[in-house]
Amino acid sequence: MIIVMKPSATTADTKRIIKRIHRLGLQEHLSQGETQTIIGVVGDTQRIDRTAFEVLAGVERTVRITQPFKLASREFSPAPTVIDVKGVKIGGTQTVVMAGPCSVESRSQILETAHAVKEAGAQILRGGAFKPRSSPYSFQGLGEEGLELLAEASAETGLPNITEVMSPDEVSLVCQYADILQIGARNMQNYRLLQAVGKANKPVLLKRGLSATLQELLMSAEYILANGNYDVMLCERGIRTYERYTRNTFDINAIPALKQLSHLPVISDPSHGTGKWDLVGPVAKASLAAGADGLIIEVHPDPAQAWSDGAQSLKTGRFAELMTEIKALAAFLGRSL
Amino acid sequence: MIIVMKPSATTADTKRIIKRIHRLGLQEHLSQGETQTIIGVVGDTQRIDRTAFEVLAGVERTVRITQPFKLASREFSPAPTVIDVKGVKIGGTQTVVMAGPCSVESRSQILETAHAVKEAGAQILRGGAFKPRSSPYSFQGLGEEGLELLAEASAETGLPNITEVMSPDEVSLVCQYADILQIGARNMQNYRLLQAVGKANKPVLLKRGLSATLQELLMSAEYILANGNYDVMLCERGIRTYERYTRNTFDINAIPALKQLSHLPVISDPSHGTGKWDLVGPVAKASLAAGADGLIIEVHPDPAQAWSDGAQSLKTGRFAELMTEIKALAAFLGRSL
Amino acid sequence: MIIVMKPSATTADTKRIIKRIHRLGLQEHLSQGETQTIIGVVGDTQRIDRTAFEVLAGVERTVRITQPFKLASREFSPAPTVIDVKGVKIGGTQTVVMAGPCSVESRSQILETAHAVKEAGAQILRGGAFKPRSSPYSFQGLGEEGLELLAEASAETGLPNITEVMSPDEVSLVCQYADILQIGARNMQNYRLLQAVGKANKPVLLKRGLSATLQELLMSAEYILANGNYDVMLCERGIRTYERYTRNTFDINAIPALKQLSHLPVISDPSHGTGKWDLVGPVAKASLAAGADGLIIEVHPDPAQAWSDGAQSLKTGRFAELMTEIKALAAFLGRSL
Amino acid sequence: MIIVMKPSATTADTKRIIKRIHRLGLQEHLSQGETQTIIGVVGDTQRIDRTAFEVLAGVERTVRITQPFKLASREFSPAPTVIDVKGVKIGGTQTVVMAGPCSVESRSQILETAHAVKEAGAQILRGGAFKPRSSPYSFQGLGEEGLELLAEASAETGLPNITEVMSPDEVSLVCQYADILQIGARNMQNYRLLQAVGKANKPVLLKRGLSATLQELLMSAEYILANGNYDVMLCERGIRTYERYTRNTFDINAIPALKQLSHLPVISDPSHGTGKWDLVGPVAKASLAAGADGLIIEVHPDPAQAWSDGAQSLKTGRFAELMTEIKALAAFLGRSL
Repeated sequence: MIIVMKPSATTADTKRIIKRIHRLGLQEHLSQGETQTIIGVVGDTQRIDRTAFEVLAGVERTVRITQPFKLASREFSPAPTVIDVKGVKIGGTQTVVMAGPCSVESRSQILETAHAVKEAGAQILRGGAFKPRSSPYSFQGLGEEGLELLAEASAETGLPNITEVMSPDEVSLVCQYADILQIGARNMQNYRLLQAVGKANKPVLLKRGLSATLQELLMSAEYILANGNYDVMLCERGIRTYERYTRNTFDINAIPALKQLSHLPVISDPSHGTGKWDLVGPVAKASLAAGADGLIIEVHPDPAQAWSDGAQSLKTGRFAELMTEIKALAAFLGRSL
Repeated sequence: MIIVMKPSATTADTKRIIKRIHRLGLQEHLSQGETQTIIGVVGDTQRIDRTAFEVLAGVERTVRITQPFKLASREFSPAPTVIDVKGVKIGGTQTVVMAGPCSVESRSQILETAHAVKEAGAQILRGGAFKPRSSPYSFQGLGEEGLELLAEASAETGLPNITEVMSPDEVSLVCQYADILQIGARNMQNYRLLQAVGKANKPVLLKRGLSATLQELLMSAEYILANGNYDVMLCERGIRTYERYTRNTFDINAIPALKQLSHLPVISDPSHGTGKWDLVGPVAKASLAAGADGLIIEVHPDPAQAWSDGAQSLKTGRFAELMTEIKALAAFLGRSL
Repeated sequence: MIIVMKPSATTADTKRIIKRIHRLGLQEHLSQGETQTIIGVVGDTQRIDRTAFEVLAGVERTVRITQPFKLASREFSPAPTVIDVKGVKIGGTQTVVMAGPCSVESRSQILETAHAVKEAGAQILRGGAFKPRSSPYSFQGLGEEGLELLAEASAETGLPNITEVMSPDEVSLVCQYADILQIGARNMQNYRLLQAVGKANKPVLLKRGLSATLQELLMSAEYILANGNYDVMLCERGIRTYERYTRNTFDINAIPALKQLSHLPVISDPSHGTGKWDLVGPVAKASLAAGADGLIIEVHPDPAQAWSDGAQSLKTGRFAELMTEIKALAAFLGRSL
Repeated sequence: MIIVMKPSATTADTKRIIKRIHRLGLQEHLSQGETQTIIGVVGDTQRIDRTAFEVLAGVERTVRITQPFKLASREFSPAPTVIDVKGVKIGGTQTVVMAGPCSVESRSQILETAHAVKEAGAQILRGGAFKPRSSPYSFQGLGEEGLELLAEASAETGLPNITEVMSPDEVSLVCQYADILQIGARNMQNYRLLQAVGKANKPVLLKRGLSATLQELLMSAEYILANGNYDVMLCERGIRTYERYTRNTFDINAIPALKQLSHLPVISDPSHGTGKWDLVGPVAKASLAAGADGLIIEVHPDPAQAWSDGAQSLKTGRFAELMTEIKALAAFLGRSL
C-alpha cells in the first residue's frame, strides 16, 4: 500500500501517519518527491481498510500495490488448472462446448436438445431449472422437476450437465443432479452462495457479474477456492455498458487478461454476451481465437417458442453448422474438440 | 408489445407472425408505415418472452409498451406509502435520517455512535453485523454478536435500527434484532433473498444494484411486494460508471424519477454514493432538495480506525454539524425532522 | 510517478529501469515491500510517457502521483475565480441563471423567450445558432442569422448571451455576437477549438464530455487557460451510463468535487442532465444545494413545437415558477440572485 | 415513429396529438391496447424532433422506428464497399494490416518502422503528425514536418499511409501527404471536421468515439457520405467502461453488428482497444475471427522510448511474429493477406 500525501501536507501530518503505521505493526518507507511525499507501507496490509487512511489530515489518496487474490492468481499456480468432469477435461488442450436450452421446459424439449447438441459435438449439456428472472411474474423454471429431466437427458446421452444454483440452501439438492454448478451473473457477489458452493464437491462455473471488474470476478472465485473447492471456471458473459444494439457488451479483452492473471479455465458465453442469435457465431469464434478454453451456448429446438432467452438461442440446425466451423477453428488453433 | 418488421419483410412473414399471435390467444393490430410494417400485440403479454419473436423471419425488433411493475407503480397507489417504524414515519412529511457505523465493531463503538447520532437528531441507527465484503480475507462482520450489540444500542437510545441481511436462511435470525432489514446493492437481484424478506414482517430498505436500472430496482421491489410485504423503501446509493474520482456516481435523477414512477419512499445514501466523507454533506443536501424522503449516512467515532468504509464515514462531530444544516434545509423545504 | 514491479521481477530488471530513469535526468527512490519492489521517480515527469515504462521487463504497472492540471487547480489559485460578463458576476456569491431556447428558430421566438426569461429573473440569455446534431439531415441551426437574432434579443433585453461555437475558424465570427462562448460536450476534446477559444477574449463555458472524467474536463480547461484565456466556467451536463430512463445521468458528485479540485466556477445544466422537462426542477435545486455557481436551462415558448430538445425544455410559465423556487433556495443558501 | 400514451391519457389528449400530426402533414394510425393507446405516425418523420411530442399532455414516450442512417446502411448497398488505396483493396476478400508508430518522432524512427512493418507483411503505414493529447503540456506531434517524414517513408517503401487530421482547416494540408485520413475517437462528433473530410478526395478511417453507440458511429459516417465522400472505413477501437484493467473495453460485438448494419469496411484497432501490448495479439486474432476487414496496430522500434502510447506498442520483432500468426489465420478464414 502507498499513501500519497497532498502537496499542502505538513511534516506533522506525515509524522502522525507514520505513528499510526507503526501502531498497526507495519513499517513505513518515505519518499520525498518534487511536490508531494509518498509513504510506502510495508508488511501484511491485507486485513487493513486501506481507505481509512484517506480521512487523515494531509492524505490525498492511497494506492493498492499487492493483488488481493492469492489462490486464484497465476503466481499461486503457474500451471493451468484442468478440471475433469466425468472425463471431459476443461482448461487443457481440449476446447469444451456446453450447449442446451436456457430453461428446461419439458421432457421432450430437453431430450430432443440433448441428443441434437451431442450429435453436433457438444461435450456438456446446459439447462436451467432454477431461473433468476427480473420479474416475479415471469416463468421461474421447473425447479426440482427440471433437475430430474436434465439428469435424465444426461443419463440418456452420456453428456455431463451444468445447471444454475440460486441459494445456499438449494446447493445440496442441485448437487444430487448436477455435474457442474453454475453461479449466475446476478449472484457473483452473493457471498453466502459462494461459500456454500465452495464447500460442495462439484465443479463451479462462475459468471462475471453485470458490472464486475476482472479483479472482483477473481475475488469471487477466491471465495470459492478459500472454502476448499478448487474446481472453478471463470465465465465472461458480457458486461453492461451504454450500448443498446446488443444486450451486453462482450469484453473480449477479459479472455486473455484472465488467462494472464489466473490459472483457472476461462469459458465464453456468446449467447448472453450478445443477446442476438445471429451474433453468437462470430463472437464464439472470436473467443476461441482470443484463447478461451470453452464455450457455453444456448440452443433450442424452436427458439420462437422458448419460454426465456428466445432471441439469443440457436436452432439445433444452426448450432450444428456452427460446431462444424468451431471444430475446424479449434483444430487450426491446435486444440482438440 | 410492438413488433417492428424489417423493411425487407414480406407479406408472408407478417402473416406467419399474426398466426403465432393468435395461437398465443392474443390479438394483432397492423400498421403499415412508409418503409416498415408495425404489429401491435393486444392482450396479456406479461408472461410471454417478448424477445422470442425476434428470431422470426422478417422481424427487426420488439418494443415493450406496458410497464412490467404493477404493485410498485404510482398507478397502483397514487398516494405515497408511509412506513411506520416504531413511530418514525418514513415517506410522509418527515425527513428521516438513519446514521451509524458501517460495521458494528464493539460494544463501546456502537453505543458511543448511537448516543452521538441520537443527540445530533438522527431517528434510526444503522450498523452492519453481516458484511458482504469483496475479499474473503476481509473482516466479515461480528455476526449475531453484532446484532445483539446493535439491539442493545437501540434499546438504550430508543432509536429503531436497520441492519443488512445477506441470505434467506438468516432472515429469521436478523428479524429477532432488526427493525428494518437492509438488502445490499450486491443482493438486489438475489431473488431467493427478496422472496424471503417478502415473507418477513419487517420493513425492507432495498438498495439499488451497482448497475441496476430504475426499472430493475422497481422489479426487485415488486418481488418483495408480490410476496406480501408492502413496507419497502428504495435506496439510491450511486451507480458504477467510468468515473474514478468518486467511488460511485450518485444518480440524483433517480430521486425525482422514482418518486414519479412509484409510491414507495426514496432514501439517499450519500456515503456510498460518493465514497468520500467530504462530499457526503453536499450530496446529502442535494438529495433532500431533489425530493428524497430520507438519508442513510455512515458515522464513526474515529473513521481512521474503522474496520470498513473509513474513507466515507463522518466523524460524530462533523455529522452533528451536518445535521444542523440538514434540519434547516428540511424546514425550508417544508418538512419536519 | 511510481513504478510497481512484478513479484517475479529480478534485481537486473530493477537495475535496468533505474538506469533508464537516470538517462531521462530523473532520480529514483527504491522501496522494497514484502512481495514487490516499488520505484518512485523524482523530478519533472510531466513530459514523459509514463506508460512507456510498462513495456519494460519486470514492470507490473505505473501510477501517476502529481495532478496533471496546474492552472485549473485549486492549489494554483486558492481564491475562486469570479468572471464578470457585462456586470453579471459568475463564481462569486451570486447564483447565475442562463436560460433560453436550445436553438434560435426565429426573431419572434428568441425575442419572446428573452423577454420571458428576463422577467422571470434570468441574468444570461442562451440560444444556439450553430447546432451540433448527430444526423446530417436534422436542423443544423440558423448560423449567422441566428447569431444576429440572438444579439438583437440581448440588445433589447440587456441580457448578455451565451452561444455555442463549433469550429476554430468560426470563433472570430461568433465573438462578434456572443458574450460567452460555449464549447459543447462533443467538442470537449476538440483541442484545436480549445486552443482557438483560449486565444479569444470572451469567457468560455466548457461542457463536460459525454464520458469525460473530471480530470479530463480539467485538462481541457487547462488547454484554454494555457492559451491565455482565464475566464473559463466548467459545466456538468450529465454523463452517459447504462441507465435508459433519463437521457443522461447527472453526476451531482461532480459539483462539490470540481469546487474542491479547481477555482473555476461550476455551472449545472439540468436540461441535458435529465432530458426530461419534469426532472429539470428537482435537479436544478439539487445542484444549487450541492454548491453550483449557476444553472443553464432550456426554455421555449412552445416546447412541443421546438425544432430541437423539445422534451427537455421548460415552457416560459413553468420556468417562471421554477425561478421563484430557485430564488428562495438561493437566498436560503446565502447567495443572491 | 410511435407515440405511446400514458394509461391515464384521455380521449381529448389523443385527439390533440392527432391534430398536431395532421398539421405536420403526417398521418396517424391508432392502436388501442388493454391499458394504453399507441399512435403510429406515418410519413416523412426524418426532420421532426421526435422528443418534442413527449411534452404533450398524456404522452408517456416516443419510439423511433426507421433507422436514421441511409447511405451507410446495408439496405442502401447490399454489396460491401471496397476501397482502393493505391492498389490495396479494403473491404473485399483481402485482410488489410495498417501498422506503424503512434507518433512520427524522427526520420530514422519512421523509416526503420516502415521497413520493418513492410517486411512483416503490413500493407499500410500508420503514423501521427498531429496528435490530440489530453494535456496541453504533452508532445503534440511534429506537425507538417511529421507529415513530410511519413510521406518520405511511404515513398521509400511503397506503402500507402494513414495519418490523423484534427481540424477542418488542416484537411487540405494533410491531404497533400496522406493516403487515408484518420478521424480520431475524440473527433467522431466534430461535425465541421466530418463535413470537411466529406468534401476531400481521400478515403477516411472513422474511429468510434469513446462512448459512441454503433448508431452514432454510423450517423457520423453518414455525415461524410452525405458530403460526397463514399470511401469511409469504420474503426472499432474500444469503448470506455468501468473496467480498469484495460485502457478500453474492446467491443467485439461491434464487428459483426456493423457488418450487418452497413456495407462499409470495418477495421479493428486492438492497440487502443486494450492499451496493453501483450493483449494486442489475442484481440487482433479475435477481430479477424469475428469478421473484421483489417487491423490497425501500433508498432515501435523501442516502445519504452516512445513519446506516446508506449504501453500498447509492439516491438518490430513481436509484430513480425504476430503477422505470421495473422497470415495463417487469414488464410484459414479464406482471406488473402
